[in-house]
Amino acid sequence: MKQKGTILQNELRERIHNMEAGEGVTLSKLQKILLSIQGPVTTILDVLHGNVNMFIIDQHVENAEKSVAELLDIEIDDEIFYREVILHKNGRPLCYSQSYIPLSRCSDEVTEDLLNKRLTTGNIMDYRHIETVREISNIDIEKITPLLQDLFKTDADLIVREYNMKHKKKIVVHTKEAFPISYFTEM
Amino acid sequence: MKQKGTILQNELRERIHNMEAGEGVTLSKLQKILLSIQGPVTTILDVLHGNVNMFIIDQHVENAEKSVAELLDIEIDDEIFYREVILHKNGRPLCYSQSYIPLSRCSDEVTEDLLNKRLTTGNIMDYRHIETVREISNIDIEKITPLLQDLFKTDADLIVREYNMKHKKKIVVHTKEAFPISYFTEM
Repeated sequence: MKQKGTILQNELRERIHNMEAGEGVTLSKLQKILLSIQGPVTTILDVLHGNVNMFIIDQHVENAEKSVAELLDIEIDDEIFYREVILHKNGRPLCYSQSYIPLSRCSDEVTEDLLNKRLTTGNIMDYRHIETVREISNIDIEKITPLLQDLFKTDADLIVREYNMKHKKKIVVHTKEAFPISYFTEM
Repeated sequence: MKQKGTILQNELRERIHNMEAGEGVTLSKLQKILLSIQGPVTTILDVLHGNVNMFIIDQHVENAEKSVAELLDIEIDDEIFYREVILHKNGRPLCYSQSYIPLSRCSDEVTEDLLNKRLTTGNIMDYRHIETVREISNIDIEKITPLLQDLFKTDADLIVREYNMKHKKKIVVHTKEAFPISYFTEM
């Protein structure tokens, strides 16, 4: 079911439909919405659940391996900021998010924010008024990893969405968001 | 209840809550989501309802009056593109949308698209890869107008959202979206 490249907004309905058919699942309306929005899921989860906060699992600067360099269209060994977080409400996990940010494409202010502020990457882009194009590059259903099995306390499959924020035609943030298919089924 | 300026993403929950309290209404989850997203509602409505199309009520080039010039931060009499549309499924109206676009801030390609293609303004920005900041400037509940009363076949109040797309720090699209409060209550 893997397809490469940008999913246009008007192709999303069909892509979700094909994913449901291919995997033999039926997504809830809210799950479909969370796959379709152009920005991060944080705002919607905050509006629906109230008081959604971020727990940082890991964040550090590293040198890009080949797979990450290809993902971001940078050179191997270029410096990137890596962050893994869980969005939660009162400790109950709602969504996992993993971001890769090429540091050479960030202003000093953004790098500073990433390292020192407890803001989501999407919020930093908004707060710094960084003009972007947002493109969904993948939606999929994947087997859950041991880390997320432990965090979400379930072995259900994951609903996954990957998207890029581009600035000056280059990827400045690549994000992968994931939540168990047993979540957000209430509407 | 009118407040001016940009509503930050992390202020939306409180703004919606205050609006509900002030107006004595309770919004559905879907209504709250439609107020909260950073992009146009078209994609979500298309994913949920399938086959959402646009009916153009009016579109023309005009010279900005004072109120519009203030809204867009342009000079009085500057040329703007004005468009009023209804998003519908099989003729059943779902959402009304009104856009103002200062032509001096558009490339020839975008102006051409606006005048000749049957694409929503949001889709044109995406399709042309225009990098933007998207800012919600107002959410509110308003009395329905005679035009929309006739289109939506209801006299229910309207849920209204206004947002700006900014490019090179200037407003390139101001959009007002509205739907009756009796719509989208199913989830």
